[in-house]
Amino acid sequence: MPSYKAPVEEVLFLLRDVFPIQRYNNLPGFAEATPDVVEAIVSEAAKLCEETLQPLNQTGDRAGCVRNKDGSVATPQGFKEAYRAFVEGGWVGLAADPDYGGQGLPFTLAAIVDEFASSANMAFAMYPGLSQGALAVLLTHGTGAQKTMFVPKLISGDWSGTMNLTESHCGTDLGLLKTKAVPNGDGSYAIFGEKIFISAGEHDLAENIIHLVLARIEGAPAGVKGISLFVVPKILIEADGSLGPANKVTCGAIEHKMGIHANATCVMNYDGAKGWLVGEPHRGLAAMFVMMNEARLGVAIQGLAISEVAYQNAAAYAKERLQGRALSGPKYPEKPADPIIVHPDVRRSLMTIRAFNDAARALAIWTALKSDIAHRSKDKTEVRAAADSLGLLTPVLKGVLTDVGFDNTVKAQQVLGGHGYIEEWGMEQFVRDARITMIYEGANGIQALDLVGRKLPKDGGRAMMGFLGEVKFFVKDNEADASLAPYLLGLEQGLAHLERATMWFMQNAIAKPENAGAGSYDYMHLLGLVALGYMWAQIAKAAIASKAAGNGDAAMEAKLLTGKYFMERIMPETSAHLARISAGAGTMMALPAEQF
Amino acid sequence: MPSYKAPVEEVLFLLRDVFPIQRYNNLPGFAEATPDVVEAIVSEAAKLCEETLQPLNQTGDRAGCVRNKDGSVATPQGFKEAYRAFVEGGWVGLAADPDYGGQGLPFTLAAIVDEFASSANMAFAMYPGLSQGALAVLLTHGTGAQKTMFVPKLISGDWSGTMNLTESHCGTDLGLLKTKAVPNGDGSYAIFGEKIFISAGEHDLAENIIHLVLARIEGAPAGVKGISLFVVPKILIEADGSLGPANKVTCGAIEHKMGIHANATCVMNYDGAKGWLVGEPHRGLAAMFVMMNEARLGVAIQGLAISEVAYQNAAAYAKERLQGRALSGPKYPEKPADPIIVHPDVRRSLMTIRAFNDAARALAIWTALKSDIAHRSKDKTEVRAAADSLGLLTPVLKGVLTDVGFDNTVKAQQVLGGHGYIEEWGMEQFVRDARITMIYEGANGIQALDLVGRKLPKDGGRAMMGFLGEVKFFVKDNEADASLAPYLLGLEQGLAHLERATMWFMQNAIAKPENAGAGSYDYMHLLGLVALGYMWAQIAKAAIASKAAGNGDAAMEAKLLTGKYFMERIMPETSAHLARISAGAGTMMALPAEQF
Repeated sequence: MPSYKAPVEEVLFLLRDVFPIQRYNNLPGFAEATPDVVEAIVSEAAKLCEETLQPLNQTGDRAGCVRNKDGSVATPQGFKEAYRAFVEGGWVGLAADPDYGGQGLPFTLAAIVDEFASSANMAFAMYPGLSQGALAVLLTHGTGAQKTMFVPKLISGDWSGTMNLTESHCGTDLGLLKTKAVPNGDGSYAIFGEKIFISAGEHDLAENIIHLVLARIEGAPAGVKGISLFVVPKILIEADGSLGPANKVTCGAIEHKMGIHANATCVMNYDGAKGWLVGEPHRGLAAMFVMMNEARLGVAIQGLAISEVAYQNAAAYAKERLQGRALSGPKYPEKPADPIIVHPDVRRSLMTIRAFNDAARALAIWTALKSDIAHRSKDKTEVRAAADSLGLLTPVLKGVLTDVGFDNTVKAQQVLGGHGYIEEWGMEQFVRDARITMIYEGANGIQALDLVGRKLPKDGGRAMMGFLGEVKFFVKDNEADASLAPYLLGLEQGLAHLERATMWFMQNAIAKPENAGAGSYDYMHLLGLVALGYMWAQIAKAAIASKAAGNGDAAMEAKLLTGKYFMERIMPETSAHLARISAGAGTMMALPAEQF
Repeated sequence: MPSYKAPVEEVLFLLRDVFPIQRYNNLPGFAEATPDVVEAIVSEAAKLCEETLQPLNQTGDRAGCVRNKDGSVATPQGFKEAYRAFVEGGWVGLAADPDYGGQGLPFTLAAIVDEFASSANMAFAMYPGLSQGALAVLLTHGTGAQKTMFVPKLISGDWSGTMNLTESHCGTDLGLLKTKAVPNGDGSYAIFGEKIFISAGEHDLAENIIHLVLARIEGAPAGVKGISLFVVPKILIEADGSLGPANKVTCGAIEHKMGIHANATCVMNYDGAKGWLVGEPHRGLAAMFVMMNEARLGVAIQGLAISEVAYQNAAAYAKERLQGRALSGPKYPEKPADPIIVHPDVRRSLMTIRAFNDAARALAIWTALKSDIAHRSKDKTEVRAAADSLGLLTPVLKGVLTDVGFDNTVKAQQVLGGHGYIEEWGMEQFVRDARITMIYEGANGIQALDLVGRKLPKDGGRAMMGFLGEVKFFVKDNEADASLAPYLLGLEQGLAHLERATMWFMQNAIAKPENAGAGSYDYMHLLGLVALGYMWAQIAKAAIASKAAGNGDAAMEAKLLTGKYFMERIMPETSAHLARISAGAGTMMALPAEQF
């Protein structure tokens, strides 16, 4: 059975030495996050995830969710109690607005807890996770009455939330959606239609489920400009806030899918369900985007989370499994064979995964801090710069952390050989669970298109220039430090490729947008590598300083080696990305469709 | 439900225009393989695979195999009838020795049929597939009596075969194996022990199952030099060839695994089962290697096969699914949206898969032809050269065709978005099934080590020099042809990287073998890319000639574009492989085991 230990020390090192969060004490919620408080929160979260959520991961996968004949859905055994423990610990509202019962702590801390929970039990973590998106939308676009009605209960976890976008004929292209909203005359609407792929659409963990639903008001214009957003509770709420009769929304079926079996993926039938408009009519997509950006970061963290737990189990196996002898001669002559961690190729897999995980965790925290600044700072320049970075990097994190995270689960599974393929060992579940992260909340190809088609050209390329400037400044600022040279050299190489690729788009994609589309995926990964390399350079700097201060030598040395590995073996991929981008769309688009 | 159409035209083009098999008419079995015969065989195989095997693929995955209380194993519904059809068609013995009832046709044809069957239903194809390895071992190392007793029944498919190597504490390191063989005094042995991960170890398709089992004769030396090979029938055979009483070998359990649910992966208990030595005592590993090389090529073909069927279904979806508009403006303004094949990033995935599949199929056929020459030619020089290529390329095909094949199933699944994650659509089964190919018959890391540690240095590097010489000769021989330039240029670039990597090993790995281990995986993929690139250059040459002759213009043009795509977008990966190889083992080996 697989195990999990939350990377508490790792996270504290990042918050203390790499991105000292004390720097942000002027932001609401940060002054309260003193080192002691942070350590207590992270340790408590680790305990809950290790002891309560993780033991249900494998049993939850096997049991799956069951839809009863009346349309209700039963989650696997133990999930109800775990959900109680989770919400009673106040974890849903960790970073939420104190005016509605939240703790108002940094979003960055919530992102860390999110990683732990997703490592321990991704299918479980999705239930409270989906409430976060609903909360964000209601707090940003809801009326005062809507906030009062829904937000405190979502924060307390008594109720949970969902996002209802996809229909069977439209996922990416929401302009095609058909779900209809008919005014009831009392300010509410009757919603008709069928939504598919609704995660946590129905379950038995919360008293009520608050659906946020995209639909078209009768007579609205076609396409994306006729889509509105509605809040539709599973159970109607009386004037006094108590639960009333059931609304006309039911779960018609749950999907049989590759993984995340313990999270119900529902077909939701809206049969005149009562809903209320959130935000302006026909402006639903914009309102929903608030939710999607949060959600994308959450999915990126899932990619990292599964990569981390898969790594831990592969490393443990590699240290125990005896097979063959080291190429340099037996390391444990008294044993029948050496542990397989002596073999270079096994180390290659493990080093590749950890070189990603450490930097991906840093990048997630770095991005979460940008989100905190963007949403909490009063300094307009600071807000603008942070929002730029957040907007630019969100699709990159979603695409890269889930793509590489998935690849890493496959690598980790491989370390176990045949045992990796057997259910009992749990590695194949990580692969199956991780696979969805590349698909949902916008398939990764869409992230790449969002990056290249929207985020990159926005405001004359301001966000990208800001990011490049920040990385260059770091390099220049540290180039006198010889001990950092191996890290800066690799980073500069990647940066040069990224600049050439950006230039190539400027010269070739304006007249022919297909050139941007054809290079978008490689560009997303190229930018991701540079961002991860930038994290490594910062980690290395902090590790060198920490070593010099006489702290945790062995752990710091391990970081320096892992970062060096990243520069030697992962960063060189940037050249292939550049070559592919520069190849353009010609060959790719030339083949007639019928030849495929 | 997924569908499958065997690539008959593609295969005939390869056998006719790219590697004209008429060239080998001097070899036994080739003269009989006239163009008409080849076309008839390939078409018949296609029909059987499309109409009989493929419809059982998804139902077989859902039902899985069931072990009854008595240890017998039931295959999914329809498998018995399909197996009958398969063996009655003579497919097991297509290339087998006519002296024992085989048809003696080229092994190359059998490899092609193997691809079709594995695309249609990989779990099914493994049952007759495993008989091939048993046949090869018995024909090479068996006594006359053993051949007479077992071979005709294996060829007819009345009986099937297995390979029993792995034990719970040893997979890769067979030197640790404990299964014991005690002489019975009558020339037979009593076998005691437990084997795990035995594919097709027990089932209801054949009257008898012939296990080939590695075990240690009592008192044998420890390690690999004390391992012998035994043939152990499930049911004992009487002197007259009829079936006698059950032998003492039973299936103790079947594994619950990620995929290939319809193929029983068994724990086999040997409780004094009667077995007979095959080959010399203590020389079992060498004898088993005959089987493993065959099997590795078979697994490589599985990687291609799943990649092919996944491609077909992704391409069909991409041509039908309407979502969004082409970046260059609507292609089908009368429809609510364009089919997603207009989007560059969807094409990127599909082109990447087909650029691999076409070349991988060529490489499988090229290698199978080498096998035919190595086993059937009377010309010693020719045999030596062919055996060199076969030995060198077998681990490369196993490692690269299964790694990339798996990645391609993931890419194909991604084209379907959320539908790719749902069981109903069948794409996730391809991913789950393909995953095992990277693990069994020697995990791919072992293939890389076999390549770099054994095949590369063997005979002073003769095989590698032969391969490099062949590719260089082709380039030189065709460099005057300007229409081939885009293909030769890419190939030469890859070749230069391969030569530098080879040189790096010569200079750095002899004194420090860990440098070879650390670079082995990248070297395997680098060599694979060059081999695939060499195939594309040959395909391009044949396509240009075929176009000039006025044949199948559109199809030939599609090949030329796909090959160009390979050179533009896949070949550039060779530079990252070279960079990683040249990084050496230093950083990778420096991290103490306890830091993982």
